[in-house]
Amino acid sequence: MLEQLKETVFKANLYLPKYQLVTFTWGNVSGIDREKGLVVIKPSGVEYFEMKSKDMVVVDLEGNIVEGDLKPSSDTPTHLALYRAFDKVGGIVHTHSVWATAWAQAGKEIPAYGTTHADYFHGTIPCTRPMTETEILGDYEKETGNVIVETFRNKDPMSIPGVLVHSHAPFVWGKDPMEAVHHAVVLEEVAKMAQKTLSISERTLPMDSVLLDRHFYRKHGQAAYYGQEKR
Amino acid sequence: MLEQLKETVFKANLYLPKYQLVTFTWGNVSGIDREKGLVVIKPSGVEYFEMKSKDMVVVDLEGNIVEGDLKPSSDTPTHLALYRAFDKVGGIVHTHSVWATAWAQAGKEIPAYGTTHADYFHGTIPCTRPMTETEILGDYEKETGNVIVETFRNKDPMSIPGVLVHSHAPFVWGKDPMEAVHHAVVLEEVAKMAQKTLSISERTLPMDSVLLDRHFYRKHGQAAYYGQEKR
Amino acid sequence: MLEQLKETVFKANLYLPKYQLVTFTWGNVSGIDREKGLVVIKPSGVEYFEMKSKDMVVVDLEGNIVEGDLKPSSDTPTHLALYRAFDKVGGIVHTHSVWATAWAQAGKEIPAYGTTHADYFHGTIPCTRPMTETEILGDYEKETGNVIVETFRNKDPMSIPGVLVHSHAPFVWGKDPMEAVHHAVVLEEVAKMAQKTLSISERTLPMDSVLLDRHFYRKHGQAAYYGQEKR
Amino acid sequence: MLEQLKETVFKANLYLPKYQLVTFTWGNVSGIDREKGLVVIKPSGVEYFEMKSKDMVVVDLEGNIVEGDLKPSSDTPTHLALYRAFDKVGGIVHTHSVWATAWAQAGKEIPAYGTTHADYFHGTIPCTRPMTETEILGDYEKETGNVIVETFRNKDPMSIPGVLVHSHAPFVWGKDPMEAVHHAVVLEEVAKMAQKTLSISERTLPMDSVLLDRHFYRKHGQAAYYGQEKR
Repeated sequence: MLEQLKETVFKANLYLPKYQLVTFTWGNVSGIDREKGLVVIKPSGVEYFEMKSKDMVVVDLEGNIVEGDLKPSSDTPTHLALYRAFDKVGGIVHTHSVWATAWAQAGKEIPAYGTTHADYFHGTIPCTRPMTETEILGDYEKETGNVIVETFRNKDPMSIPGVLVHSHAPFVWGKDPMEAVHHAVVLEEVAKMAQKTLSISERTLPMDSVLLDRHFYRKHGQAAYYGQEKR
Repeated sequence: MLEQLKETVFKANLYLPKYQLVTFTWGNVSGIDREKGLVVIKPSGVEYFEMKSKDMVVVDLEGNIVEGDLKPSSDTPTHLALYRAFDKVGGIVHTHSVWATAWAQAGKEIPAYGTTHADYFHGTIPCTRPMTETEILGDYEKETGNVIVETFRNKDPMSIPGVLVHSHAPFVWGKDPMEAVHHAVVLEEVAKMAQKTLSISERTLPMDSVLLDRHFYRKHGQAAYYGQEKR
Repeated sequence: MLEQLKETVFKANLYLPKYQLVTFTWGNVSGIDREKGLVVIKPSGVEYFEMKSKDMVVVDLEGNIVEGDLKPSSDTPTHLALYRAFDKVGGIVHTHSVWATAWAQAGKEIPAYGTTHADYFHGTIPCTRPMTETEILGDYEKETGNVIVETFRNKDPMSIPGVLVHSHAPFVWGKDPMEAVHHAVVLEEVAKMAQKTLSISERTLPMDSVLLDRHFYRKHGQAAYYGQEKR
Repeated sequence: MLEQLKETVFKANLYLPKYQLVTFTWGNVSGIDREKGLVVIKPSGVEYFEMKSKDMVVVDLEGNIVEGDLKPSSDTPTHLALYRAFDKVGGIVHTHSVWATAWAQAGKEIPAYGTTHADYFHGTIPCTRPMTETEILGDYEKETGNVIVETFRNKDPMSIPGVLVHSHAPFVWGKDPMEAVHHAVVLEEVAKMAQKTLSISERTLPMDSVLLDRHFYRKHGQAAYYGQEKR
């Protein structure tokens, strides 16, 4: 079942090592079929170069395995919490990419310092609060999803398609698995540029909000004029 | 028309990923035929690996499309403003290369710290002033060109073949598209070295101006003695 | 003799350049056959691309050469001291990988700043005390092993599978040579992330110890639930 | 003439891009035939990928071209000054490698922070004083050599086989061209590690001098015991 989504999720996973976002098996991509309410996700701890499309695991939104011989990623409950809360999200990526992880470890949100950031993220990329002892000792991976959802209570997840989990690493999403990977690459690039910007001038202020809007809406929404018209 | 220039601009664009100056489609190269007053430029938002020589777009100096099935780069009005103002410029490159972009985001000009810089840029590489709200909300890409031209009011663009646009990224140029790409590589290298220099000693002063002149004129102008004589 | 272990140690050595942990010949891997009490190790100063499986040297736990035409790595006495003291260690790696070496040169232990660290190292990665003049002028390489063993007097080497030797570089281990190489890659990644974390916020505190435990025990020990069950 | 030395110098030059020590043509290697008193050096401004062994230029120790159709590197007078002053030097490398150049631009010598440094450089890697206006306006490239020689008045160039030229970049040497390239790679690695060490702890002190001696003499001189005996 869901053979096409499996193929997409499989290929999207292979982009993680290609874009140097992962070391070993430290990352995973999932995708959702909203009509069927089923999620396809990478199996846990399997090497990218050994993995096959048919190894992808199908789970429902409560985490029950619907199809697959392998255990799904241990981060599956986090993905599911996000799919349940963010209804326009079609694909999710988790990595420990170096620069985004460094910001997450520092517990700092990434300010918008320039148009590279503004082209994809409409404002600061937030960092979650630290999780409580109860959350960590409880249903940890699901609570990781909940703390992300809490962080987005007053934000639009489609305008800021990623987050840093405190002391952990980024989760990134998009309208489908490939866009989620695309956004994961952008987040890493933006995280890298932001640290270098601070290393040149530690008192750099966030960019002008008018410029931020101009760049974001140049690529997104009704008035977008970047790229070719969809044919 | 302009088949040879299209081929040159196409190839120059492919050097951007080769020299790791771009992620995805974040960059573009153009070239001008000064006699005909026509500019050839990359189409907007097209992946480098899918692009063909014939996809290059021909525009006049006012931005009217003269030939081409695709929309030209959204940065076209910036390129055109530079071609109109700087009459010896034959090729222009725009990228979001990491180190030059970090300096642009910090809003800092790059001082000349050593001979690598002096071999190509005859002094500080300037950063534009921040753009005004009116400029951003108006004809934004054209105004980006205007603020660059303003920055060079008292500078020779052929002696300092590049600029950082505040909160944005670099624009770089040369006598032809290939030289512009060459200068974009040099700017990135110089931007990287300058940050590392400051990280070793934050109070580093710009280099001796006599040494700056010696190196610049070793490679440029009448008395140049670097390289082989043109045969 | 020990042909299979030689092959494993040979291949594990070739992973060092593959994972960019070594420049030239600056690293070595060894493995032990606990039943026979024999250690297989890389020969000294031989280039990785010239080396063959049969060039691996077999020594006993006192450092006597049991088989091999070449001199063993000059670091052999350090490896042997660790095998004698840490009875569950099956493979050892020494490299001068850049980030771990920088921490060793700074004489600083690496705090656990996030889950990437916690997934493999159950707490701070220690740095040895500086060696004394007597130790350096004496049986230096053996004393290097002794100062590592001293550093682990109150630590479990299987929960913290690596160490920084002061003013020198890391030694890393595992239950077999391949796991030791795996841990050497992780140490380098964690060392890099830790420095970048500090560069973003120099006052970053170590992660919550409850979160550290949760991640470590998610992958290690009886209650581990990461990855697939061994089949 | 000197066909074998030309071949060696040619190959040594090709190692510069291979080891990522150069961008474009920013580097050169030379070698000397001490008996004949002749030096073979890269031609000026020629791309590495276009260059052939027969393009190498032969000059005498006064800089007269003895054989070759192309102009020798503009840095030739610097190489010659070093060959005249340092009689055991058999090969010289000049690059603008990023990390060593950053130290040169900062005008700072590189302290010995660890054994990676001590294995090759017996102490601090010096930086020349800034050159005077007279030196820069005079026979500049020759004076660059002279200021290096002055820097080594009380140092053994075979124990510290490299130098940083203030506001410029490194010159590195060895007993032959290949060893000079080897030392250029080491210098870049050591320069990188030193900056990272300071970024972790800005008050790091140079390593213990007893440890420095132990490592240097483990690889050099009569009592060396690293590597295989020469067969």
